[in-house]
Amino acid sequence: MRHNNKKSAKKGHNQEYWMYGYHAVAAALFNISRIKSELLITSEANKRLKSDKTTSIPKDLKVSILQRSEIEHVLGKGYNHQGICLKVEKKKKLNFEEFLESQNSDKSNIIILDQLEDAQNVGAIFRSALAFNIDGIILTESQSVSENHFMAKTACGGIDKVSFTTVPNLSTTLRTLKDKGYWAYGLDGSGNKSIIDSDFAKKSVFIFGSESDGMRHLTKSLCDEIVKIDINENLESLNVSNSAAILFHHLNNQ
Amino acid sequence: MRHNNKKSAKKGHNQEYWMYGYHAVAAALFNISRIKSELLITSEANKRLKSDKTTSIPKDLKVSILQRSEIEHVLGKGYNHQGICLKVEKKKKLNFEEFLESQNSDKSNIIILDQLEDAQNVGAIFRSALAFNIDGIILTESQSVSENHFMAKTACGGIDKVSFTTVPNLSTTLRTLKDKGYWAYGLDGSGNKSIIDSDFAKKSVFIFGSESDGMRHLTKSLCDEIVKIDINENLESLNVSNSAAILFHHLNNQ
Repeated sequence: MRHNNKKSAKKGHNQEYWMYGYHAVAAALFNISRIKSELLITSEANKRLKSDKTTSIPKDLKVSILQRSEIEHVLGKGYNHQGICLKVEKKKKLNFEEFLESQNSDKSNIIILDQLEDAQNVGAIFRSALAFNIDGIILTESQSVSENHFMAKTACGGIDKVSFTTVPNLSTTLRTLKDKGYWAYGLDGSGNKSIIDSDFAKKSVFIFGSESDGMRHLTKSLCDEIVKIDINENLESLNVSNSAAILFHHLNNQ
Repeated sequence: MRHNNKKSAKKGHNQEYWMYGYHAVAAALFNISRIKSELLITSEANKRLKSDKTTSIPKDLKVSILQRSEIEHVLGKGYNHQGICLKVEKKKKLNFEEFLESQNSDKSNIIILDQLEDAQNVGAIFRSALAFNIDGIILTESQSVSENHFMAKTACGGIDKVSFTTVPNLSTTLRTLKDKGYWAYGLDGSGNKSIIDSDFAKKSVFIFGSESDGMRHLTKSLCDEIVKIDINENLESLNVSNSAAILFHHLNNQ
């Protein structure tokens, strides 16, 4: 259940997969730049979709009204599909320059996820980023999980609604961001200042390290400041999506 | 990977399973009330354990120093075991009365998880509860995930370090808690007060609803107050472990 469905890949196309779950699919339907080819939906979910003012079914999309068991036949068992699934291509990511142009030049909070491998964590971070008005997410190309059905479901529409890009080289990326006026904060237990005592810059980039190893030494050395979330000394660290949620909530309430 | 290993169940015993991951196993080793029968460990992880002042290997425990590949042979592939695994019985839970007696009579923050089914969410909530000094966790017996290897790994020792119990009936439980002076807060988007504007009681119980359906109507009606986390109107809700982390962090900083 937690792996990408390689069967749906087609040569020459951006990889296709079946996205499922109400909020994920509703966001992908509404996103005009998301390439999609077929919607499978129960009549119940179709009613919900038709009364939902935040989305709509594109006129040229192939739609099949099916029973839940028929959708299960397509997806396999064990998926909480909520009576809706959509065949999509992976979202065409902005390149780094386009991503930067999409940012407000006066005030912007960007997140960097450095080598995060767990689709559920990354999906939850996209969901929280949407919830707390984070302006964009950058993922490192190497050793990061890439968009898949599990991440999309967990993100609840965050992947289609939050601006994101991937980058090959974190040093170069941070240098460019700093040139553009961003201040770089690393989130790590070794920080000597807590997030609630920090006065964050108007243009900030926050870097999170991987689930297993935390922040790399090299990455730490590229930050302007290391900040931490105060936790009980019995524990080394928090789950990364939980850390992100706490930070995003704090930023949104400042 | 996300399901309980039924093979390790034995008749007449509390169900056994292989717990893995450094922090989970270190906490279970240190917990004298945790029944454990065998430790498999690499020489590297053994060094780490021996220099760790927060835990120790019980003298009567069977210990085998193995290669990583041999541990993989026991656990199966795809587990991030960090060179350590321990055969344990599920933790003997406190009954509700013992749980209540374990609470400070003047100040206590308790969490109720109502029908949470995802081991990763519940594990992450135990981890955050430990991180932010939550005093105890109550899980509903019906439709909740029960302790397994995946939850233990995600909890990073939280299961062995945070006081918890399960209850058959939420109404009875809440009535008893209220009689003991607790104020009951439901976490739900429908609340009219944000957690950051709330002045929480010294003895508080916070109730979280399930991943898929949120808080049940019945449960809501049993709360003294419904509070919310302010999020962007584009989104219906947060991931439950992220909501919990935000609340726990807030409580710990009050």
